[in-house]
Amino acid sequence: MPTIRVGLLGLGTVGSGVYKILTGNQESIASKVGANVEITRILVRDRLRNRSLPVDSAILTENAADIIENPEIDIVVEVMGGLEPTLDYVLTALKNGKSVVSANKDMVALYGRELFAAARESAVDFLFEGSVAGGIPIIRPLKVCLAANRIQEIMGIINGTTNYMLTKMTREGSDYQQVLAEAQQMGYAEADPSADVGGLDAARKLAILASIAFNTRVTLNDVYVEGIEKIGARDIAYASELGYIVKLLGIAKETPEGIEARVHPCFIPHHHPLAAVSDVFNAIFVRGDAVGETMFYGRGAGEMPTGSAVAGDILDAARNRLRGTCGINCTCYEQKMIRPVEQISSRYYIRLNVQDRPGVLASIAYAFGDKEVSLATVLQKHTRGEQAEIVLITHRVRELNLQDALKLVQQLSSVHAVSNVIRVEGE
Amino acid sequence: MPTIRVGLLGLGTVGSGVYKILTGNQESIASKVGANVEITRILVRDRLRNRSLPVDSAILTENAADIIENPEIDIVVEVMGGLEPTLDYVLTALKNGKSVVSANKDMVALYGRELFAAARESAVDFLFEGSVAGGIPIIRPLKVCLAANRIQEIMGIINGTTNYMLTKMTREGSDYQQVLAEAQQMGYAEADPSADVGGLDAARKLAILASIAFNTRVTLNDVYVEGIEKIGARDIAYASELGYIVKLLGIAKETPEGIEARVHPCFIPHHHPLAAVSDVFNAIFVRGDAVGETMFYGRGAGEMPTGSAVAGDILDAARNRLRGTCGINCTCYEQKMIRPVEQISSRYYIRLNVQDRPGVLASIAYAFGDKEVSLATVLQKHTRGEQAEIVLITHRVRELNLQDALKLVQQLSSVHAVSNVIRVEGE
Repeated sequence: MPTIRVGLLGLGTVGSGVYKILTGNQESIASKVGANVEITRILVRDRLRNRSLPVDSAILTENAADIIENPEIDIVVEVMGGLEPTLDYVLTALKNGKSVVSANKDMVALYGRELFAAARESAVDFLFEGSVAGGIPIIRPLKVCLAANRIQEIMGIINGTTNYMLTKMTREGSDYQQVLAEAQQMGYAEADPSADVGGLDAARKLAILASIAFNTRVTLNDVYVEGIEKIGARDIAYASELGYIVKLLGIAKETPEGIEARVHPCFIPHHHPLAAVSDVFNAIFVRGDAVGETMFYGRGAGEMPTGSAVAGDILDAARNRLRGTCGINCTCYEQKMIRPVEQISSRYYIRLNVQDRPGVLASIAYAFGDKEVSLATVLQKHTRGEQAEIVLITHRVRELNLQDALKLVQQLSSVHAVSNVIRVEGE
Repeated sequence: MPTIRVGLLGLGTVGSGVYKILTGNQESIASKVGANVEITRILVRDRLRNRSLPVDSAILTENAADIIENPEIDIVVEVMGGLEPTLDYVLTALKNGKSVVSANKDMVALYGRELFAAARESAVDFLFEGSVAGGIPIIRPLKVCLAANRIQEIMGIINGTTNYMLTKMTREGSDYQQVLAEAQQMGYAEADPSADVGGLDAARKLAILASIAFNTRVTLNDVYVEGIEKIGARDIAYASELGYIVKLLGIAKETPEGIEARVHPCFIPHHHPLAAVSDVFNAIFVRGDAVGETMFYGRGAGEMPTGSAVAGDILDAARNRLRGTCGINCTCYEQKMIRPVEQISSRYYIRLNVQDRPGVLASIAYAFGDKEVSLATVLQKHTRGEQAEIVLITHRVRELNLQDALKLVQQLSSVHAVSNVIRVEGE
């Protein structure tokens, strides 16, 4: 039986997962691939550090050239993260004719074009299933299984930290700050949580998904991003009262006016398939012209789930090398316009803090009507003293019209504050 | 640009879907494949019949040899169904070096071994994503994306007719017979619904899924099958009262004692991801040692969804032919034992019709205890006259012990009938 030699760049969380999977399931993997798939070198920062993994220290190296310039290595697995010097390593490996598997969403989202070009040049694979939604198969289903469809829409819960937090806020009625502290304690949120709670992590993944779904390069700059920092316990309570649940979604749609790509908190109806996706789980809802609605669900991060996706790619690359072929390269063969967020239309939930006196609602309704924003639902609650809270859900309107209406509303003397505005999706 | 020539065997529901997709999305498909993918011949029963599809009648033929013996055709798409003469056609096409795509679950479940052998012999693809769960990508995710995992368990809602019926019974509290009549009226159930409601359709799909998941051939005969015919409105009401929902599941597990493969109605907890899968939707829940829990959701049947899966396979086969290669052949490289249903263990819901008098529950509890069946939940309800209904949920027990206990219970003079027994899964 032939041997396919794998070099790992990095032995952190995902690298350890890949190591455990490839060694633990060695026999069945060999049967599936028709070759032994063997990790022969691993790049680490410190060869002598104590490790919990039973790795033969002789295969550890602190010198990347031992892997990316090593003629015996067939597949380079990049699980070190970051861009510098990672990108250089990966491009060198591709140039040297190695297939590359990566779980690095930042690198794929920013340098997809260069990476695919280098892979094409050497006729090798560049695979990255692990870069989006951890263990959930989504890149290959989009590129192969659903390839005959025109994908119309993607809606994804693609950040586990924020989904954990929103789930906890929903179940327990607790506050953002309290839940964030708990998530940090559980290890679900980092000490600096800004990339997760601010939506940037989800935006990187959405850029990758949208590029594949719509066959046009969507970059991070094309994605409109809002985080969950402003979501309060009151918003979640109103959502529930009105039959919705609050989720941070990555949304990408193809419209006649261009591609929409945005990450922001959403109200989605209780009965939507994404509404049941709780805790750290991820799910990606895909609508295609032929297949209709599909959804892919699972763990979006972690040593073993992401390791599963990376290892699946390694097996695929190994099979291709044995056959002297490679899989699908870049699928961005079109150049579509990006539609700015001001141009989109949506329904909106709006929470206003107002003076509790007669005529306030009328003046607010008038301001919205003036900008052609029509209202579907209105709730008014007395809060305390002379303050009241008004909650509105609009019919579908242009974002620009809504922004204009909100400016008018903010100028009303009876309106203390626009407490929150959240888009309503999935209806 | 080169052309890949496709011949369709059949132009029924799925065939029409494939035709619409390949012609409707022709340009984007050509970009993705790097070749024009063109339907050049279609086998039909009657060339002269009026059709709603705008098909050039010159490409229709009533002679299968025009496709399977035609040296110009690259890919044969079998969407005629049945076994005779379908199997012969497909084997001939494979022998003649054509890649074959099929959505025929009966043929794949019964003749998988022969079909894969013929494909291997000619070094061509035999692909069948459309044979299980319509448009949902599941075969390729299992064979490629999750390939590095040891799959531990598959639980699927893989029959749309029964899921539609059970959803309606749950929502409306209606009876089996009434809902079946409605499903037939809607076109969701056939005039002879036995293959759907009896579980046979799901069993065929489960045999295919289990074979792929566990790398050992699981045939229809290996699958234990029970249908939904005995599910009453009362069972569904009790399920709801106890926090469950009733679904017809295909379940396959790998255990140290062998492979379990069974199709039967189940109680599953309200919070299980499969519980939210309603109406004609299908979903397949997969647990792997690395990836953990994943789920794949979508439409399990119909012209366009199944057409989507078949067309995805056609594109994959086309790409492989252009590269002079082929994809993964049979993955049943092991021979694992099948575990008979008497050996499995499960929790059970049991509904008994009994005499309403003192001591009845004690004698029933004694009978269960005698066979080491311990009870987790007991509900007793007065029904009418001197009759009462006792509902039990057991702890996990061997099926064999349960059967023995039920025999004892049936012999009790105070027990009129064991009205129903349903397994409890997903906890």
